[in-house]
Amino acid sequence: MNQEHKELPIGIFDSGVGGLTVYRALHDRLPNERFIYLGDTARVPYGTKSLATVERYALENSQFLTSRGIKMLVVACNTASALALPKIREAIGIDVVGVIGPGGRRAVEVAGSKGRIAVAATEATVLSNAYADAIRRASPDAELIQAECPLFVPLAEEGWTSEPETFSIAEKYLAGIRAFGPDALVLGCTHYPILRDVIQQTVGANVKLIDSGEATAVEVAELLEAKNLASATEPSGKRRLCDDLDHFFVTDAAERFGRIAERFLGSTPSKLEAVEVFGYDKLSKQ
Amino acid sequence: MNQEHKELPIGIFDSGVGGLTVYRALHDRLPNERFIYLGDTARVPYGTKSLATVERYALENSQFLTSRGIKMLVVACNTASALALPKIREAIGIDVVGVIGPGGRRAVEVAGSKGRIAVAATEATVLSNAYADAIRRASPDAELIQAECPLFVPLAEEGWTSEPETFSIAEKYLAGIRAFGPDALVLGCTHYPILRDVIQQTVGANVKLIDSGEATAVEVAELLEAKNLASATEPSGKRRLCDDLDHFFVTDAAERFGRIAERFLGSTPSKLEAVEVFGYDKLSKQ
Repeated sequence: MNQEHKELPIGIFDSGVGGLTVYRALHDRLPNERFIYLGDTARVPYGTKSLATVERYALENSQFLTSRGIKMLVVACNTASALALPKIREAIGIDVVGVIGPGGRRAVEVAGSKGRIAVAATEATVLSNAYADAIRRASPDAELIQAECPLFVPLAEEGWTSEPETFSIAEKYLAGIRAFGPDALVLGCTHYPILRDVIQQTVGANVKLIDSGEATAVEVAELLEAKNLASATEPSGKRRLCDDLDHFFVTDAAERFGRIAERFLGSTPSKLEAVEVFGYDKLSKQ
Repeated sequence: MNQEHKELPIGIFDSGVGGLTVYRALHDRLPNERFIYLGDTARVPYGTKSLATVERYALENSQFLTSRGIKMLVVACNTASALALPKIREAIGIDVVGVIGPGGRRAVEVAGSKGRIAVAATEATVLSNAYADAIRRASPDAELIQAECPLFVPLAEEGWTSEPETFSIAEKYLAGIRAFGPDALVLGCTHYPILRDVIQQTVGANVKLIDSGEATAVEVAELLEAKNLASATEPSGKRRLCDDLDHFFVTDAAERFGRIAERFLGSTPSKLEAVEVFGYDKLSKQ
């Protein structure tokens, strides 16, 4: 692999701000790498939309990022990872990593091959059975339960991380999971790590929470090494989240994105631009 | 006005399912009229998006509906009514009625010209000050307060119309309004009538709730008469909501729309189709 290619950034897209939790995990683990993040805030959320629509949006986002020059693509959005990875891989010529495979494999590692594993996710992700499939591929003997938690995304975006209403809603959504008594619970939506404390208290301290973003960062680091794609350039000073080596794009409302980034990461992107991605899927090889 | 034109349907668009409450109000008041409803479910919600994006989406929806042949356009979405009416009127050659003007005027009628009026709405609608402007135009002496209620839309879509969490969240959002002691409270988002009981109990029985959809239906009926546009055809049998004289379009996930329509209206559209509206704004005269 030529040197120039190794110095390209890693692309990350998400339906909106939630993928910033995946960006944080990647940034923490890979201090030599630069990132380009695209949040499709003009069309968020994906979790209640259809397969065809999620595929189209995901292709447009992917083609936008590849047009900027990236060496690898991370699909941070769980819904897009669940529904659109095959289409994205067909359309672009670089490695594509979703969050579901890594999250599922990590859950099996933590719970053991005959472990009890729970998945909390959006409507579309649960219906897709993508986590169930990933977990069964890693271990056919794992015991599984899934729960849809549609209000978790708006609660996280409101910043209601310790309000009594959030606890009460979590009690409702996670009652089945608590009764099931899992060894591990996959946080199957990028927003859910924001509600980690509430979720942990609701299901009990003995349940291991799996952050798919962190699991993905581990696999991305391994893949960069295996493919000899890791950047050799060490940053001159200490990297910080959202510094000017990383570039952020949104399809709408940059100001609101900056505000929620502050809430999620404790800092606002230095480089943040609004862009239009519609039509980028026409660049596809299909 | 020629007979054929009078027999055209009335177009209605909304960012998603919420506008069905406006459709219901129009349908109840105008049994001779047929309706074409477009729910932009591929891009819902609008309430957290920017002016430029809401304008573009609203134009595309409007042009799609005019391309089908309509005699009047009702913008059922409060956010689109707040942000995009001037652009829509510039682009299409028929009467356009939003929900904010009628809702604001009705609030002043009910509260009196020196009355105290509260508005509960989405982030974008509150920030636009569109209700405040409409109310001040109807009465410069009205006293005003506004509150953003971002979780009301997902709560309504979840069908949580009497859960304790919904009451508790309403307490938080509406505490300022209750302390203000309004004569009337405008339900400034099409989803909010679904939560009418919770909202009424929270602010107190003496506060009159204004459903902008109902106020809009009254003004549409007057406008049809004034412009000699009312249909002269009486339906052969009794009309019912969602019968096959009315035609529903969504930009995504028709199945989910049908399910929520059932929850909102007690019936599912007989004629329901998924369409693509992107690019329809290019038909604009601009």
